[in-house]
Amino acid sequence: MKRIKLEVAYDGTNYRGWQIQPDEVTVEGVLNQALSVLLNEEITVIGASRTDSGVHALGNVAVFDTNTMIPPEKISYAVNQHLPWDIRVQSSKEVAEDFHPRRIKSKKTYEYCILNRNIAIPTKRLYSYFVYYDLDVDAMQEAANYLVGEHDFKSFSSIKTQVLDTVRRIYELRVERDGFMVKIRVVGSGFLYNMVRIIAGTLIEVGRGAKTPADMEKILKGRNRSLAGPTAPAQGLTLLGIEYENQ
Amino acid sequence: MKRIKLEVAYDGTNYRGWQIQPDEVTVEGVLNQALSVLLNEEITVIGASRTDSGVHALGNVAVFDTNTMIPPEKISYAVNQHLPWDIRVQSSKEVAEDFHPRRIKSKKTYEYCILNRNIAIPTKRLYSYFVYYDLDVDAMQEAANYLVGEHDFKSFSSIKTQVLDTVRRIYELRVERDGFMVKIRVVGSGFLYNMVRIIAGTLIEVGRGAKTPADMEKILKGRNRSLAGPTAPAQGLTLLGIEYENQ
Repeated sequence: MKRIKLEVAYDGTNYRGWQIQPDEVTVEGVLNQALSVLLNEEITVIGASRTDSGVHALGNVAVFDTNTMIPPEKISYAVNQHLPWDIRVQSSKEVAEDFHPRRIKSKKTYEYCILNRNIAIPTKRLYSYFVYYDLDVDAMQEAANYLVGEHDFKSFSSIKTQVLDTVRRIYELRVERDGFMVKIRVVGSGFLYNMVRIIAGTLIEVGRGAKTPADMEKILKGRNRSLAGPTAPAQGLTLLGIEYENQ
Repeated sequence: MKRIKLEVAYDGTNYRGWQIQPDEVTVEGVLNQALSVLLNEEITVIGASRTDSGVHALGNVAVFDTNTMIPPEKISYAVNQHLPWDIRVQSSKEVAEDFHPRRIKSKKTYEYCILNRNIAIPTKRLYSYFVYYDLDVDAMQEAANYLVGEHDFKSFSSIKTQVLDTVRRIYELRVERDGFMVKIRVVGSGFLYNMVRIIAGTLIEVGRGAKTPADMEKILKGRNRSLAGPTAPAQGLTLLGIEYENQ
């Protein structure tokens, strides 16, 4: 028996998120099925990040145990033959048998894309959030800086969250303009439910002048979801990758 | 009565191309309908480029005649309210009443995107052609250079084409790598049916070593479709824009 770690890319448009659910098409469900067919074993993956409905990934991580004789590195190519084109396993390798993708310390990188121009571009609509008022990227970066470090992010967490400990660490939070795209890139030790999308929604409010950069400190200290901006829509968000220590 | 010129962007994924056809959803058909509802007149646009099923556009051009009192520049915003999100009019303005988008001399710019890496990326699948063998971009550019200028492009035209004059002028043809995307950008006076996709398919053959750059000269001189490479798939192609003289 060996444990295999996969890096999984997907277009979230046609999925009800990562996590398996009865009667819903989810990335986890489709991946379990493809691996089970390929390996002729009942496979159940453990995912690192249970991304929401409509959120995309370039490098989510999943592990599973198998007795297969297929060399670990070849599994990615083989399983892709059994997957639809909107899910592609990017790599596969053997890891320690106690490797658990949610319990081992990691750095996750997310990107939120905002299409910021007068008129929307149809080919970008599934992978960005269209905002037509001109965004002040410098103000957004100034606001973002308040969030870097270890903080209680209760204000930036969905009221639906069930976790009690809302302290997280953000290593990096950058807002950059790349032509008509404004990209928010955040690296953190882990994120609360909807946290990146609420950060994006709040930074957009700063960018259009509805909030000031200094408001970020008050929002953070207030520990109250209603102080932050709206949850930005799912399709702008992509999980770029997850780095594990010693892996 | 005035003539209005539109720049139209669309995601071609869900359309049977530009040109109106009975019982098919086409960009032209949807645009005619939206304009007719908005302006309360029977509107029939004349399109500049009848892009194929699955091809995208950032700036196709269409004109139509109307008696509306809506200021020409406002029509784009107004008609977008009546269009699905995969079609967005980017601009609207009044032009001379004899302006015909296919008869007036123009420069059209197309881009063909190739995702060139080991494993496909799901979020790019609708807007690029996935090629896993490593492409030699320098060889592709060398091959492309043979096509610049005025030539008989019969070898690069679908056998289905009905035009007799297959001479066209390419002003510019550049092949560039942008990370894992290889982009072919071509500016020309006009293109034969499938010409850009056949050029892309042939350059890909050069890029993977199946043809040499010098073969391009023979293909061009042979005036025979079977000498060139395959027609690259539609979803990699985007009509970026059309420039008209004196407009």
